[in-house]
Amino acid sequence: MSAERLIYLPLGGAGEVGMNAYVFGYGPKGAERLILVDLGVTFPDMDSTPGVDLIFPDVAWLEANADRLEAVFITHAHEDHVGALGHLWRRIGGPTVHARAFTGHLARLKMEEHGQDPAKVKIAQPMPEMIEAGPFRVGFLPVSHSIPESASLVIDTPAGRVVHTADFKIDVTPVVGEAFDAAAWQEVAKPGVQALICDSTNVFVHRPGRSEATLSSEIEALVEGAGGMVVATTFASNVARLKTLAEAGVRAGRSICLMGRAMRRMVEAAVETGVLTDFPSTVSPEDAAGLPRENLMLIVTGSQGERRAASAQLARGKYQGIELKSGDTFLFSSKTIPGNERGVLRVVNQLSEIGVDVIDDSTDRYHVSGHANRPDLERMHDLVKPRMVIPMHGEHRMLREHVKLAKSRGYEAAIAVNGTMLDLTGETPKVAEHIEAGRTYLDGAVQIGALDGVVRDRIRMALNGHALVTLIIDEDGDTLGDPWCELMGLPETGRSRAPLTDVIEEDLAQFVGRAGRKVLADDDKLEDGLRRIVRNTSVNEVGKKPEVTVVISRLG
Amino acid sequence: MSAERLIYLPLGGAGEVGMNAYVFGYGPKGAERLILVDLGVTFPDMDSTPGVDLIFPDVAWLEANADRLEAVFITHAHEDHVGALGHLWRRIGGPTVHARAFTGHLARLKMEEHGQDPAKVKIAQPMPEMIEAGPFRVGFLPVSHSIPESASLVIDTPAGRVVHTADFKIDVTPVVGEAFDAAAWQEVAKPGVQALICDSTNVFVHRPGRSEATLSSEIEALVEGAGGMVVATTFASNVARLKTLAEAGVRAGRSICLMGRAMRRMVEAAVETGVLTDFPSTVSPEDAAGLPRENLMLIVTGSQGERRAASAQLARGKYQGIELKSGDTFLFSSKTIPGNERGVLRVVNQLSEIGVDVIDDSTDRYHVSGHANRPDLERMHDLVKPRMVIPMHGEHRMLREHVKLAKSRGYEAAIAVNGTMLDLTGETPKVAEHIEAGRTYLDGAVQIGALDGVVRDRIRMALNGHALVTLIIDEDGDTLGDPWCELMGLPETGRSRAPLTDVIEEDLAQFVGRAGRKVLADDDKLEDGLRRIVRNTSVNEVGKKPEVTVVISRLG
Repeated sequence: MSAERLIYLPLGGAGEVGMNAYVFGYGPKGAERLILVDLGVTFPDMDSTPGVDLIFPDVAWLEANADRLEAVFITHAHEDHVGALGHLWRRIGGPTVHARAFTGHLARLKMEEHGQDPAKVKIAQPMPEMIEAGPFRVGFLPVSHSIPESASLVIDTPAGRVVHTADFKIDVTPVVGEAFDAAAWQEVAKPGVQALICDSTNVFVHRPGRSEATLSSEIEALVEGAGGMVVATTFASNVARLKTLAEAGVRAGRSICLMGRAMRRMVEAAVETGVLTDFPSTVSPEDAAGLPRENLMLIVTGSQGERRAASAQLARGKYQGIELKSGDTFLFSSKTIPGNERGVLRVVNQLSEIGVDVIDDSTDRYHVSGHANRPDLERMHDLVKPRMVIPMHGEHRMLREHVKLAKSRGYEAAIAVNGTMLDLTGETPKVAEHIEAGRTYLDGAVQIGALDGVVRDRIRMALNGHALVTLIIDEDGDTLGDPWCELMGLPETGRSRAPLTDVIEEDLAQFVGRAGRKVLADDDKLEDGLRRIVRNTSVNEVGKKPEVTVVISRLG
Repeated sequence: MSAERLIYLPLGGAGEVGMNAYVFGYGPKGAERLILVDLGVTFPDMDSTPGVDLIFPDVAWLEANADRLEAVFITHAHEDHVGALGHLWRRIGGPTVHARAFTGHLARLKMEEHGQDPAKVKIAQPMPEMIEAGPFRVGFLPVSHSIPESASLVIDTPAGRVVHTADFKIDVTPVVGEAFDAAAWQEVAKPGVQALICDSTNVFVHRPGRSEATLSSEIEALVEGAGGMVVATTFASNVARLKTLAEAGVRAGRSICLMGRAMRRMVEAAVETGVLTDFPSTVSPEDAAGLPRENLMLIVTGSQGERRAASAQLARGKYQGIELKSGDTFLFSSKTIPGNERGVLRVVNQLSEIGVDVIDDSTDRYHVSGHANRPDLERMHDLVKPRMVIPMHGEHRMLREHVKLAKSRGYEAAIAVNGTMLDLTGETPKVAEHIEAGRTYLDGAVQIGALDGVVRDRIRMALNGHALVTLIIDEDGDTLGDPWCELMGLPETGRSRAPLTDVIEEDLAQFVGRAGRKVLADDDKLEDGLRRIVRNTSVNEVGKKPEVTVVISRLG
């Protein structure tokens, strides 16, 4: 057996939906030449990551092995696949980045935003063109998804062919972009495929997937039946949906107005790269404000209830001169991503207060998923006929279910979560190594490790409040005045009905008064004592144990 | 027309699902005698209420009018209906509380926990008994719900009869408790009903409701088909479901073990009050640990993914000597409440990592709702035939939809959100007044107003971190040493690669060095200046603007 091996190492996206980053390697053990597929972000939440701006995969391993990295391939332009490129590109050694035109256009913007050379992003043509990258030859095979020009990757290696599906669905009428081409897939499968690295998002959805084109008549009927203004929201990057919505609006006799920065940016990118050729003409928000509302349809950002997006602003009042009224209709042509329910319901209830009729995703008539459902995953397995199926792009429960599905149908399969390096060379996938693969937070302008404790401290202050104590000790080792206490995020008064700061300061003064010179001379003991007093008094008074910072100033 | 009027004033529960509290009044304007229906809590979340323990309706208006309050009626023992009783009972004047036996049992425990006289809770018999309370006569009419002995209230007033449904479903085979009795409802409707105050939770669910009894065979089949241990979770208060689960387990040849404090407390309450007479015998966790896993079924708390509940602990490892293994089955016989998705998915993915097969609520086979679906709401309207329908127990979108539904079927109807006082005396409901009706937080041991700023400060620290600055000024008005800075929840280093505290302290020292004696003499100016430096330097270095506390100590 050869000493060379083919490895697969997810650094993000395997065990979660988000921050995709998958490494493939080929060569002698520990010296494999590498390629990286995707480099995305995940979004923070108040529960676990308050104040964090973005979450990246931890690329420390790639950074340490940057000299082995041949290239990066971006499968499509969703933030969870390309969002970290600008932030991490330099850290991983500034490799060449390959992407198709639309994806590359947006990837270049991301590079520019971070002061990096956009020319490092090369525009790839779809297969049959293959891109050489060390021992790899990589082809972009178009697939349908909820963004234009998504591509699976056909990765040829000396150990055989690997197919990485990326995010995909099987759609023969996708409205925008190439239809699913079963013949092309059969062609890809012909030489034999060693491993299929496969999207797992919808493995629990048992019904067959539906085509984007099925939405058109439903949406048209809805718009036609609406009395007042119609507003529809979806992901800005879902250009096909924007087109479906806009065309339905036009057929129902309405002018179309796009609102939200991301919306305009996406349509521009799609037009510039030739992805979108026949989008209905639109009116500006200024012109829209002058139109009769029954002749107007807005297509807006904010399908996930994001506070600053157009939909949330419209729900709170006016946005760009346009105001919703009783009798208007608001359509969520989207699915609420788990974790965003509260934000979406906030918008829906605000719309309800205005008297707007909201059509949400519960009817399943105005939205289709961009991911392959279970029957379509089965079809993909059977089209590619790989030796092994390695599920990716999913929470652990999805990966596990996908492995069970593949095994039940006769394929080898294995779960590899972030940091699990698999050896794909043989008959079956084998765990080769475990790599430290955590998360990196973009916190303001700084990248910090998820375990650095910075965010943990913020969570503690959010739960417990914060107290600070200052004490001055003079040249002789005596206290100069009493300890001083300031509180933030704690109730002002507690059980004894006096201000909490006063009660704490009294107890601190007593402690200092009783403390011997030995304690006063010892910063650690003094600090511990003061901290304990604050916590005990606070618990007694208000039932909360704050975070405490003690500052002891010694004069002379 | 009489100068007396019948009023309805929701203080909680109308415009949200949670913290129910509904006031009814009868008498001369501004001097109505009052009764209160329910006094519940809502649960905090990290997004908007970090560190808060419980959320109550703001009862300031009731407190100010405590001398007019005749009595409190508790419809059932869910926390969102009775959870605030112990906390707020004294503030609203210590009124008599009426509840049926099971509810009263739990209400008395809540009174005792807060050092109040449990005898103030009177046990009510169901109708035909009517309880006098000032101008009101109130009867408890049994209805089905997801807790034993839920009751609608039939409220007779000089201005006619009002029916308050409380939380209800129409179930003729509820497993535990009284079956829905259509004849009794027709009897109630006979004299004519002025207003129906009606549950709105499931107004968007168009299919007819299903009975608790339909679950039995499905669950039995599931348990029978399971190989390893079976664990099922549901709300502890859903005693009928506990029975359904336990009986299915026994029929499938398994011993039943209840785990979680709330679970045992509820079953005890149900047995003590005679609600539950034939629950299968159970084994203790100690005994359970010794049984073959294929002969064991655990019924545990934590259906909402709560971190400390039994299900989360089992998912993390061992709990009370029992450890889950690959091949076990975990059933969520419950629905995930919006906002709890992340917590539930965390548990599901942890279970997946162990290799446990999870059956969630997506199949709709192992759980039925405790609330009336839309067709059952229609049936309720038509049974009671009220002059007007006033929707309650729902988010704004639900109340609005419920009003539309009632109006479309010929009933008068109006939305009244928390704080909206309706006059129900005439042909149609009329808004009489708006009352300040916010939220009160239980924060540790202290009740604070939602707008007090305490929680806002904690959220700001969570998002921005906290910096503190100390500066000592001597007897002559000169600085004594340099300003000192301590940070919490901020990255340690920023753009200039030096420790952030050092960079800030340098800038602070420069500022103080340049500051004239006038600034040094003025606490406000000095504090402003120091705060501005911290924020500017921090933004430049790490891109975050922390909350800042400044302590200036003046000697002499």
